[in-house]
Amino acid sequence: MNDAPITIDGLIISRWSRAVFEDMVAGGLSAANCTCSVWENFRDTAEAMAGWRRRFIEHADLIRPVETVEDIRAAHREGRVGIILGWQNLSAIEDRIDFLDFFHALGLRVAQLTYNTRNLVGSGCWESRDGGLSDFGRHVIGRMNELGILIDLSHVGATTSAEAIEESVRPVAYTHVAPRALKNHPRNKTDEELRAVAERGGFVGYASYPAFLPSGGDATLDEILNGFEHMIGVCGEEAVGIGTDFTQDQPLEFFEWLRRDKGDGALCVPGRPAVPKMPEGLARMSDYPNLIRAMEQRGWPAARTERIMGLNWLRFLEEAWTPSTAASIVASPTPENHTKWRKTHA
Amino acid sequence: MNDAPITIDGLIISRWSRAVFEDMVAGGLSAANCTCSVWENFRDTAEAMAGWRRRFIEHADLIRPVETVEDIRAAHREGRVGIILGWQNLSAIEDRIDFLDFFHALGLRVAQLTYNTRNLVGSGCWESRDGGLSDFGRHVIGRMNELGILIDLSHVGATTSAEAIEESVRPVAYTHVAPRALKNHPRNKTDEELRAVAERGGFVGYASYPAFLPSGGDATLDEILNGFEHMIGVCGEEAVGIGTDFTQDQPLEFFEWLRRDKGDGALCVPGRPAVPKMPEGLARMSDYPNLIRAMEQRGWPAARTERIMGLNWLRFLEEAWTPSTAASIVASPTPENHTKWRKTHA
Repeated sequence: MNDAPITIDGLIISRWSRAVFEDMVAGGLSAANCTCSVWENFRDTAEAMAGWRRRFIEHADLIRPVETVEDIRAAHREGRVGIILGWQNLSAIEDRIDFLDFFHALGLRVAQLTYNTRNLVGSGCWESRDGGLSDFGRHVIGRMNELGILIDLSHVGATTSAEAIEESVRPVAYTHVAPRALKNHPRNKTDEELRAVAERGGFVGYASYPAFLPSGGDATLDEILNGFEHMIGVCGEEAVGIGTDFTQDQPLEFFEWLRRDKGDGALCVPGRPAVPKMPEGLARMSDYPNLIRAMEQRGWPAARTERIMGLNWLRFLEEAWTPSTAASIVASPTPENHTKWRKTHA
Repeated sequence: MNDAPITIDGLIISRWSRAVFEDMVAGGLSAANCTCSVWENFRDTAEAMAGWRRRFIEHADLIRPVETVEDIRAAHREGRVGIILGWQNLSAIEDRIDFLDFFHALGLRVAQLTYNTRNLVGSGCWESRDGGLSDFGRHVIGRMNELGILIDLSHVGATTSAEAIEESVRPVAYTHVAPRALKNHPRNKTDEELRAVAERGGFVGYASYPAFLPSGGDATLDEILNGFEHMIGVCGEEAVGIGTDFTQDQPLEFFEWLRRDKGDGALCVPGRPAVPKMPEGLARMSDYPNLIRAMEQRGWPAARTERIMGLNWLRFLEEAWTPSTAASIVASPTPENHTKWRKTHA
């Protein structure tokens, strides 16, 4: 048995190693959405996901793959960390909607529609203009809905996000965002944007990433708790969870790659790339217990702490990942049939 | 020596074979922009262009590669057809601007910014909405300008086209279009759109493709001449040439592939795909002499006929393909430097 509460992190993009997995276990993490594609194309994403299959064997004492919510419960029981394979972009499918099925079969469970710039689906939040969803993007959403791949909008532009929320017949998520009301930053979401997701049964993971916090890397756990409480006030206690955006052990080059369009193009995020200084108390993945303590010290009821730490994510992921009935998937592999499918399932 | 006038076709997308090359020679064609990528990705476009290198050897008695305007003059002298390698999309570079250099070195001289739908650069004319150029698209245009790859806007959406005309420091072309004033069709261009290209030193190839003509496949050479004369009236006699859009010997499956987004997605061009019925008199690539005769029968001065048949294209391509000075190319391989380069060369 495991006495720690179920702890689920909506987004981690650390530099994977045995040391990092040990830190995740030390933090009592039950599961996390672990990014395995940002700017990568089909081939490189396949390589990244194949790398995870190898890690699941080599580090089986520390981690295990997650394909269902039951896998998260099992990871928690076993004291291992459940690895949810996720993407922060759809560059991996290139121009083939069928690759969604392919990667879903390999474990993909969460995918952000765009990273910082425009892709074939829509626009990211750092693109000069957001022209909304493409026709291709609407079909992509349809297929993600059918398969049960959670749609993440964290880095997605405001117009594309609003249209995706309308287009999707399933609730969507901001897996790792902070409130714009507390810090005016292009990646942070307004209360209206947060509410639009929550009102339709969607979910919001709170990102304690320094750039998004009022005090940056000097933020205290108290300030982070303020962020959670703001999100809870806007979205309700059941629609909020963790989404740290931990980049543990990533080198400077990684942040430069992230900030350049497609990894090698123009700097789409202004400013000099740097390894972020993390807030004290929630600086490493072994620090989740500090977060629990801070919640207790704030006087949160135990039930709220448990929800925010992981039970909310658990319930939401169950809903997000249940595939549509086999019949509806078989009946609607073509984009033409998707419209029909939506009418039946909406 | 070759007594026929220099004849240049701004776009051919036929099913390449020795029989087709023989027909091109029979038609007295000096050179044509031959499509070797539409929906293809990097790898498949590389294969298509490698295929051309093989054809240049196997059919050296009929065709030769064109990298400069001097190659077109040589082809005309030799009674061979100069093959200009062109793309109708930028899917081939995937997410790498550097691949423009790579393919330019392999002979690429003309590239359309988008085919019918939205790609990473901008939107095509059959996409539901045209959100204009992406940030990536502006850098792509910059690199095409530097290398001397002609920018083609024929299938590009109205907003993306207008922005590309503004962004490009070199004149651009509609290689294969017809006037919307004569037939209201989404692929046809308004007089304003034609004028916007010509006014900045750009070029327009007139497409005698049946779908774009008032009488469709029943169009006569007389109707086709009306189209040329309308374009000349709008753009001036020096900015107009041929751009037939010949699809000779292509099977039905090819037209279905063209009409589906990315070749296998939703039908982006409405209606049932069919092998087009070509206008009598300009139905095959051996028919260019009929076009010359029709121009003469209309009473066009010989100088005008020669210009429209090929001399205009020849002059324009010379300008379009001259690379910027080596120094400016060497100095500006990064997107950041492009803005600087534009200021110097605009």
